[in-house]
Amino acid sequence: IVNLSSCFLQGILERLDAGEIVIGDGGFVFALEKRGYVKAGPWTPEATVEHAEAVRQLHREFLRAGSTVLQTFTFYASEDKLENRGNYVAEKISCQKVNEAACDIAREAANEGDALVAGGVSQTPSYLSCKDKAEVKAVFRKQLDVFMKKNVDFLIAEYFEHVEEAVWAVEVLKESGKPVAATMCIGPEGDMHGVPPGQCAVQLVKAGASIVGVNCHFDPDTSLKTVKLMKEGLQAAKLKAHLMSQPLAFHTPDCGKQGFIDLPEFPFGLEPRIATRWDIQKYARKAYDLGIRYIGGCCGFEPYHIRAIAEELAPERGFLPEASEKHGHWGDSLSMHTKPWVRARARKEYWENLKPASGRPYCPSMSKPDGWGVTKGARELMQQKEATSEQQLKELFQNRKF
Amino acid sequence: IVNLSSCFLQGILERLDAGEIVIGDGGFVFALEKRGYVKAGPWTPEATVEHAEAVRQLHREFLRAGSTVLQTFTFYASEDKLENRGNYVAEKISCQKVNEAACDIAREAANEGDALVAGGVSQTPSYLSCKDKAEVKAVFRKQLDVFMKKNVDFLIAEYFEHVEEAVWAVEVLKESGKPVAATMCIGPEGDMHGVPPGQCAVQLVKAGASIVGVNCHFDPDTSLKTVKLMKEGLQAAKLKAHLMSQPLAFHTPDCGKQGFIDLPEFPFGLEPRIATRWDIQKYARKAYDLGIRYIGGCCGFEPYHIRAIAEELAPERGFLPEASEKHGHWGDSLSMHTKPWVRARARKEYWENLKPASGRPYCPSMSKPDGWGVTKGARELMQQKEATSEQQLKELFQNRKF
Amino acid sequence: IVNLSSCFLQGILERLDAGEIVIGDGGFVFALEKRGYVKAGPWTPEATVEHAEAVRQLHREFLRAGSTVLQTFTFYASEDKLENRGNYVAEKISCQKVNEAACDIAREAANEGDALVAGGVSQTPSYLSCKDKAEVKAVFRKQLDVFMKKNVDFLIAEYFEHVEEAVWAVEVLKESGKPVAATMCIGPEGDMHGVPPGQCAVQLVKAGASIVGVNCHFDPDTSLKTVKLMKEGLQAAKLKAHLMSQPLAFHTPDCGKQGFIDLPEFPFGLEPRIATRWDIQKYARKAYDLGIRYIGGCCGFEPYHIRAIAEELAPERGFLPEASEKHGHWGDSLSMHTKPWVRARARKEYWENLKPASGRPYCPSMSKPDGWGVTKGARELMQQKEATSEQQLKELFQNRKF
Amino acid sequence: IVNLSSCFLQGILERLDAGEIVIGDGGFVFALEKRGYVKAGPWTPEATVEHAEAVRQLHREFLRAGSTVLQTFTFYASEDKLENRGNYVAEKISCQKVNEAACDIAREAANEGDALVAGGVSQTPSYLSCKDKAEVKAVFRKQLDVFMKKNVDFLIAEYFEHVEEAVWAVEVLKESGKPVAATMCIGPEGDMHGVPPGQCAVQLVKAGASIVGVNCHFDPDTSLKTVKLMKEGLQAAKLKAHLMSQPLAFHTPDCGKQGFIDLPEFPFGLEPRIATRWDIQKYARKAYDLGIRYIGGCCGFEPYHIRAIAEELAPERGFLPEASEKHGHWGDSLSMHTKPWVRARARKEYWENLKPASGRPYCPSMSKPDGWGVTKGARELMQQKEATSEQQLKELFQNRKF
Repeated sequence: IVNLSSCFLQGILERLDAGEIVIGDGGFVFALEKRGYVKAGPWTPEATVEHAEAVRQLHREFLRAGSTVLQTFTFYASEDKLENRGNYVAEKISCQKVNEAACDIAREAANEGDALVAGGVSQTPSYLSCKDKAEVKAVFRKQLDVFMKKNVDFLIAEYFEHVEEAVWAVEVLKESGKPVAATMCIGPEGDMHGVPPGQCAVQLVKAGASIVGVNCHFDPDTSLKTVKLMKEGLQAAKLKAHLMSQPLAFHTPDCGKQGFIDLPEFPFGLEPRIATRWDIQKYARKAYDLGIRYIGGCCGFEPYHIRAIAEELAPERGFLPEASEKHGHWGDSLSMHTKPWVRARARKEYWENLKPASGRPYCPSMSKPDGWGVTKGARELMQQKEATSEQQLKELFQNRKF
Repeated sequence: IVNLSSCFLQGILERLDAGEIVIGDGGFVFALEKRGYVKAGPWTPEATVEHAEAVRQLHREFLRAGSTVLQTFTFYASEDKLENRGNYVAEKISCQKVNEAACDIAREAANEGDALVAGGVSQTPSYLSCKDKAEVKAVFRKQLDVFMKKNVDFLIAEYFEHVEEAVWAVEVLKESGKPVAATMCIGPEGDMHGVPPGQCAVQLVKAGASIVGVNCHFDPDTSLKTVKLMKEGLQAAKLKAHLMSQPLAFHTPDCGKQGFIDLPEFPFGLEPRIATRWDIQKYARKAYDLGIRYIGGCCGFEPYHIRAIAEELAPERGFLPEASEKHGHWGDSLSMHTKPWVRARARKEYWENLKPASGRPYCPSMSKPDGWGVTKGARELMQQKEATSEQQLKELFQNRKF
Repeated sequence: IVNLSSCFLQGILERLDAGEIVIGDGGFVFALEKRGYVKAGPWTPEATVEHAEAVRQLHREFLRAGSTVLQTFTFYASEDKLENRGNYVAEKISCQKVNEAACDIAREAANEGDALVAGGVSQTPSYLSCKDKAEVKAVFRKQLDVFMKKNVDFLIAEYFEHVEEAVWAVEVLKESGKPVAATMCIGPEGDMHGVPPGQCAVQLVKAGASIVGVNCHFDPDTSLKTVKLMKEGLQAAKLKAHLMSQPLAFHTPDCGKQGFIDLPEFPFGLEPRIATRWDIQKYARKAYDLGIRYIGGCCGFEPYHIRAIAEELAPERGFLPEASEKHGHWGDSLSMHTKPWVRARARKEYWENLKPASGRPYCPSMSKPDGWGVTKGARELMQQKEATSEQQLKELFQNRKF
Repeated sequence: IVNLSSCFLQGILERLDAGEIVIGDGGFVFALEKRGYVKAGPWTPEATVEHAEAVRQLHREFLRAGSTVLQTFTFYASEDKLENRGNYVAEKISCQKVNEAACDIAREAANEGDALVAGGVSQTPSYLSCKDKAEVKAVFRKQLDVFMKKNVDFLIAEYFEHVEEAVWAVEVLKESGKPVAATMCIGPEGDMHGVPPGQCAVQLVKAGASIVGVNCHFDPDTSLKTVKLMKEGLQAAKLKAHLMSQPLAFHTPDCGKQGFIDLPEFPFGLEPRIATRWDIQKYARKAYDLGIRYIGGCCGFEPYHIRAIAEELAPERGFLPEASEKHGHWGDSLSMHTKPWVRARARKEYWENLKPASGRPYCPSMSKPDGWGVTKGARELMQQKEATSEQQLKELFQNRKF
């Protein structure tokens, strides 16, 4: 296997246009939550300032695992979000500082290899609380200013539940002149206002995105269904764009329209749903076969999941990632085990066909998602809020674009 | 809550004798395998030389999570093991270098807090291949030389399947004059030669161990059963020792005498079995109630699992670990979520009673462990080895003390 | 509760037109297979001649359980079917004899109460092997001749996978002047030629059916979805008909377009899927709420499942079935149990909310249906048949209207 | 295959002594509850008087399925039990009538083949409420009087939780001079007073039982473990007796000492646990290999389960049961199916290896048994009974020999 990384000095679009497979990175907020640096609930990235070494180490691990792109850890780092939720964080950490530190750390890590740095924005409280287009755009522009100052290689608008807001984000990011990717956290049923995936893709491309797809909220299988609908929408509209997928590394066949957040296990009981490396190899192959060339992950993706993408697609890419020096092909590092029945696991067929047990015989295999009218706890809380009826609160929520 | 960490300057026995709860750290080989620095199969710790920053970062995370003890990453770092399996590692990395680097890194991390450093030895290929007592002890002594030179705070003999070898290890470690802890990777059925847990504990204490218990191979529930048997054995023999448990963070109700290695999911399909933080809180409480005061984890324990121990026992200990600044009490960081049904999860009863779904309806909840006569693949491999019969190979293996 | 059975002397349409709830019976072929009188595979009803007492007893049990209608046990009793598959049956048992005995037995049982007798026809090998309309109709007409001679109360065309054949059956049955009900064994995806449920219903009503719906192949939930689509189709076409459902008493959330036959458990491993009486009470309520007034069951429905329908709808119907003298309301016969925790089960909330365990921790909760390209065994068999390719055989099958 | 039934005219002991395999029958109370003739809770057999035809039909089905022995349907037909619980039954049905009718019906059915009739007694309320030996024996003697008058072929004392009461029953039955079999509804942990299975067996044989074993309460696997312990107990005591097993046809790996009654699914949600015919074939083989020669079933065993025993042991017995004319060997009746993937199921390997799915992804695979201190509902009920403490009630219960 020849190391082709010399060709990695090009930009994201040159690579994709040339047919290269671009590998994204994994999920920062979940990985850093488990490592002790991010708080579940707010999910804000002040760790870039508080614990740069921990963020840098995670970037480095993804790089070693094969990521072609390192995203700045700027998820939910918009000013309105940090103000809104960040009250447990020292006041002195400004939005600008968080974003600047994120850019610096990502670039340092990227320079240890040949990776690109992508600056990312995501959905805002401003949009959800019905602020107007100008106000919402101003929020994105503040982050963009930092990305321009730090000269990231390209931009990603990700984790949008409403295509309207995603389009606004793309429009702002396009002002930079840099390539823009846009992914929504939606499933095959479309965005929260009912816009189907195909139409979402069309609107995003028309707004200026060169790469479109989905991230977060759904498992690989569901996410690929959504990207397929996006692809078909673009074809029908005779538009061209590169496709991208960054799904969860959790199995969520049972989730509803709003994804894994409604599952009872979110976010502190998702362990039994974590994908194995073999699940991810299957995902990578399926994504590739669907024509997706920007393949990464979101929440739940740890470095070894990214490595699984890089290993599955090594024949097409022509090389293995650095971290594969610590990983056998389909379990072949077990071929020297003292027990013959463990040695017998050192082959592809074994892992491909394994139906892994949960070790939890008192637990079910699927859950009913929570939602309106479902949970008693929710109803009780609503009553505390003096909403006179569930319907009333539901409408209230819907008006909030939530 | 008052931070009592000033009292942490004492040694391990002073702490335990004073009734303090000592929190161990988690599993290095599994965590670093997922991060890309350890190879499954050999499981050797050359990363201490190759990627010190990654090892240091993991120590740091356990420290932040509440670990009172940082173990040197010297698992399987005996000379015979490194020679035996380490052919994929650059020749220049000597056993001594690996052990020295491990001590240095652990000490650097420990100095960021008030943690103790424990040097660890584990079972050796020399014993399994029937080398004699003198030869096996010589292997341990080489590692001990490094631990003495680097002046670790105390010593742990861990991951022993045969009490005979564990006793030899304890005898060597006791030569140092430092406190010695000893844990075996056995279940309630006892060691591989059939010595029951109670007798194992008695032998270890008589050999000089001040702390005894179990680590690895079994889930928390099973491990606590084994420690209970050890405790009863010591009581019957009128011996005194501190108790210790460092189990898996995987659910393994279905495994046999030799633990999780025989489960079909080992080691690359264990994800559905990973314990939640709430499972670990229950384990911590149960361990405490059983009288165990050195409570940690082994394979599968990530920093957030260690934090769960520290949070569960915060009332007894009087303080929370540093990483709890990024963690709400029983999910209370969800209390600000926009969706009322997610807010309804911000309470102890919710997480305590959750039966988390696997999201894998095509998979079972339990597996049959592999073993003699069970797997076709194993039989085929045995035939390749020209073993004329399964019985023959079985005997061969048993003679190898395996 | 007043016994209103005196009003049961009316015909099926008078009852339905008056708003009465009509309760069907359960599944004969599965129940009698377990009792030793029907052979799985052929599923033919020669037991009416060979073991009349066993057939009569099952009718009687359904009658006691609350069935308003007893169907003649004439499933697959068409001449072409009995010839085709019945080679293990004594040659002397003619198609006519089987049908006549079925009518006699059903009438004898019905006379023990106030039930109606319905003569039934089902899909034919003639249709599947591409015989023309005249030939297929001739097959139905032979059965109809017996039904007329024996003067059944009304007629049912059931278990049709193709609406074309069902329409032919209805057209023949309508020649009798008696009321005709028609049910198809299809799911929400429609018939085997892709005709959606709504259109199937419209065609059946236009052909003369007064009652339309589904039977067999799918579980209650799926079946009700299909009937809902039929209802909507009829409403759109401004047609009126009574609705009917007779689903499986097996849970089949995982089956594909062709229903439970493709599930790996069919027909000898379906036990874990059997519905509880409480599942059936929920089904009865849901069916009623959807506007269905002819509510029964098919394969898997035992007498106690039919009783569950009658008990759930007792408030609406005004009376309980005879067999309820041996059944407590929602488990209240447990209220005298010696163990307090069993007594605690004598209440509706308990059984309504129970998530019954399978006791099979080594089995999954869902299966992948077999089908084209799926099973190795199937492929091997096809090769034995000298089909040169799977595609070829697939076309062959499709041409056979299968 | 030669029909050897001519040799069936001998008595039970002649047959067993000659090495013949005797096949028992299945579970009457569960089967007739589902058919509408027995009330769950009381489980009393007044149907022998009220609906003789239904009882006769079930006997006939077991006979056709291969039962060598038909037990009179006299379970819980002791006078104290019928008085105690039978208040919903017409007063005119005396204990004597129920027992006499049971004998007549069983004999009529047995005469349709070559089966033996066994009269059965089971545990009594008198014993549980601490009546003395004389009183309890008097209860058994009343039933025995009927069995003698009706001249049953031999006697069975079954479903005893306490060996003390079982011994009393055997002593009474032995007064008749007829052969006596005795089975207890216990698991490997022994009877409710803690007497281990081996000692139970010894006491029963010493009291006069020629055949000993277990029935009810546990699944086949657990029951065979118990019989194995009985066998070992007899061997240690140098006693000889024939072995017998009549387990549940429900999977109960999760039940505690008192068996399936404590499982949350008992008795109205056990469906997912029902054994397939293949499970029962495995049980029959395992029972045979263990040396058991009286092999039958209890609750959950339907006629097709008994047929499965007869088919599995047909090579040893030399003939198939009558009902096998309606059953293919290991699914071979599917070999003519139109779908190739269903035809592919017509072989032993398929059904032997099938892991049947439950179709219930929202349900677990195992349950925690209810019991003291477990259920909230139980505690509430206890409070209603004005028991001042759980302990108090527990003691109360234990004193009641319950």
